[in-house]
Amino acid sequence: MNIRFYNARILRTNDNHTFNITKGELWVKGNKIVYIGNGKDVSSATTGDEVLVWDRSIDAEGNLLIPGFKNAHTHTAMTFLRSFADDTTLQDWLYNQVFPREGQLTEDDIYWLDILGIMEYLTSGITSNFDMYFFPPKNQKASVDCGFRTVQTSGLNDFGGSVEILEENYNIVNDMGELASFIIGFHAEYTTSKDKMEGVARLAEKYKSPVFMHNAETKREVDECKERWGVTPTQLTDSLGMYKYGGGGYHCVWMEDKDFEIFKEKGLYAVTNPCSNLKLASGIAPIKRYLSEGINVAIGTDGPASNNALDFFREMYLMSTLSKVKEMDPEATSAEEVLYSATAVGARCMGLNDCDCLEVGKIADIAMIDLSQPNMQPMNNIVKNLVFAGSKQNVKMTMVNGKILYEDNEFYIGFDKNEIYERANDIIGRMK
Amino acid sequence: MNIRFYNARILRTNDNHTFNITKGELWVKGNKIVYIGNGKDVSSATTGDEVLVWDRSIDAEGNLLIPGFKNAHTHTAMTFLRSFADDTTLQDWLYNQVFPREGQLTEDDIYWLDILGIMEYLTSGITSNFDMYFFPPKNQKASVDCGFRTVQTSGLNDFGGSVEILEENYNIVNDMGELASFIIGFHAEYTTSKDKMEGVARLAEKYKSPVFMHNAETKREVDECKERWGVTPTQLTDSLGMYKYGGGGYHCVWMEDKDFEIFKEKGLYAVTNPCSNLKLASGIAPIKRYLSEGINVAIGTDGPASNNALDFFREMYLMSTLSKVKEMDPEATSAEEVLYSATAVGARCMGLNDCDCLEVGKIADIAMIDLSQPNMQPMNNIVKNLVFAGSKQNVKMTMVNGKILYEDNEFYIGFDKNEIYERANDIIGRMK
Repeated sequence: MNIRFYNARILRTNDNHTFNITKGELWVKGNKIVYIGNGKDVSSATTGDEVLVWDRSIDAEGNLLIPGFKNAHTHTAMTFLRSFADDTTLQDWLYNQVFPREGQLTEDDIYWLDILGIMEYLTSGITSNFDMYFFPPKNQKASVDCGFRTVQTSGLNDFGGSVEILEENYNIVNDMGELASFIIGFHAEYTTSKDKMEGVARLAEKYKSPVFMHNAETKREVDECKERWGVTPTQLTDSLGMYKYGGGGYHCVWMEDKDFEIFKEKGLYAVTNPCSNLKLASGIAPIKRYLSEGINVAIGTDGPASNNALDFFREMYLMSTLSKVKEMDPEATSAEEVLYSATAVGARCMGLNDCDCLEVGKIADIAMIDLSQPNMQPMNNIVKNLVFAGSKQNVKMTMVNGKILYEDNEFYIGFDKNEIYERANDIIGRMK
Repeated sequence: MNIRFYNARILRTNDNHTFNITKGELWVKGNKIVYIGNGKDVSSATTGDEVLVWDRSIDAEGNLLIPGFKNAHTHTAMTFLRSFADDTTLQDWLYNQVFPREGQLTEDDIYWLDILGIMEYLTSGITSNFDMYFFPPKNQKASVDCGFRTVQTSGLNDFGGSVEILEENYNIVNDMGELASFIIGFHAEYTTSKDKMEGVARLAEKYKSPVFMHNAETKREVDECKERWGVTPTQLTDSLGMYKYGGGGYHCVWMEDKDFEIFKEKGLYAVTNPCSNLKLASGIAPIKRYLSEGINVAIGTDGPASNNALDFFREMYLMSTLSKVKEMDPEATSAEEVLYSATAVGARCMGLNDCDCLEVGKIADIAMIDLSQPNMQPMNNIVKNLVFAGSKQNVKMTMVNGKILYEDNEFYIGFDKNEIYERANDIIGRMK
């Protein structure tokens, strides 16, 4: 498919967490951006030898094209537990509500529940996710079938999985095509034996893979880790040689000085999950300190059971504003820093270096933001409007790998939305 | 206009912050709800003598009718400063950015800027606002012309206004028809002389009106009030006899034990503004304590210059989740408590006792929530979905006083949206 956007505003990413916006055209050929300009200086376009024939020529009507948001931590298929057990303690939620029902999930269930989550991502301008859940190959199949880009990791822990299965999934998923990849990981220190963690470290060495895990989500997790090992989860995993090829942690709320040092030294990613951290009363992550120390911060929604939405606008707003209130400093963590985390940093965190920004040669993972809604007016500052006032209502189109999967409230993923809803309701209905 | 909704889910409000959802029909005659039921037991309908002829009969397709959200604190016309000066200190924001530009606003400017805000309210399911800004009669005219319901209050302070003008506006606005009302108020203790505050108290006595003001928004405000008067803003205003007929405070973040007692004794409303309190780094309000002591909490967006959106879904989500993280208790402040605040409590706070819920005889201020979006599925718990996963994208229709003002992304307020956007951009453009 060759798709031409004209009359567009185009968000261009600069280094150092800044952006500028140009007006003009953006051309997509296959899965790549091949031209950005005024539509006239086509000699500079990397269109190859052939003459481009447009399958679609889309009048963007002045709306904004942005690199799609990168959801750098989630458990997508947990859609079935959305609003199932809220306003309750973490213990009750996890042990009485979540675990017994997750144990009943089949591979097929996960396939359908994942598609429901992908639909929600598309409504939010999210073009790829970094997913940790059961049955990664089946989970990945849902993404591939929809045309959605997913990076899998393992949720290996003492209650399920093995280092051998992890390795098998690593190889299967990495062989599932251009929308699929797998980065080594495990659930968390507090759920995983040292033996298994050492196995993970060996695997990371063997495949030269980064390693990701839940890290310092709650104070209790860190306290108990220190009781067990005398050090924090960051220090323990580092001592096991996990981070030779990088990686990072999900949540990273309760960090000590030495943890910051390790993240900085090893170039690790702190993946922040503001909504989940609020809703489960885990705490507020030290975003200002990460950024001021040059530590990369990516953003995740966490799973829909603990959030309860997969809404990147809410996460972006909160990454900035929670940082401001935590520091009691309204200058902390600007809209530009947040948008950079949501797009460029997220992409690099997930190993999607070609999906990080809108430039010629990059992969066409793009969202179109409707600026003709009242929350985007007046246009004093479009980036600040996007981060501080934007909502899913502003997502007019979401394109993954050069294909439009969502446009004007309709999904183009090969499934009927009502069938997906019925299946999701049936799956949780079966469990009650 | 007589409008019939069928195939609807209807949110019914119970006492004690709970809800249930019934299926069936809801009929609107003029500006009133005249029937809720299965559409067959019409003998019980209060349709009067005439046979109802439908101007419109709307298939709700299983979607949810809810009482419209009540935005209990805002400065609507500040739309012109949206994203104008973010990520900066409060002093710079207020004294260098906001005040000099507000000084240039004409009555006409406020009319147009207000309409922009009203459009945004409608996209968020908000059916009435409690507005504090310059030129209340002109501000109110914008609402009346759009068909929107607004309760005005005064922003009287030492830099503008007088008790006489306040009284004049009180009488003018209260005479502007069924969509208009005025409750006595002033800006805040820290901006207003004791003389003027005493004048406000006399006026409240004369008209038997509640009194509202900004109260305990920042720690500095409270500290400085105590330096000046030896007591907090709540205690000072109470000592001036402000609350004989009730009232309350906007923000109410930094409260002392005695302040809680006064709020409880006098039946005052704490109007919380979670987004604004985060973004300006003011703090997190003690919502759990208010609710546990039986103090009424309403919700406001504050103005779009400090928020930057007028999005009730974000406010609702944060009223609950900020409370959870403040208390480090995931059980704190349930979805149901939040939704009750957003609808029933807000209505009472604003003196709109007939707009508080969906029952026969109540005024038809209604929003329709689209449940056929992925973020509303599966339907484990519709109220929790609404509060924890809802977004403006789910607002399918907003009706005020029996008239549909917004439906399927189109506005029916008698103005072209592009003209409103142009005017807003022109107004701020003129000032740069």
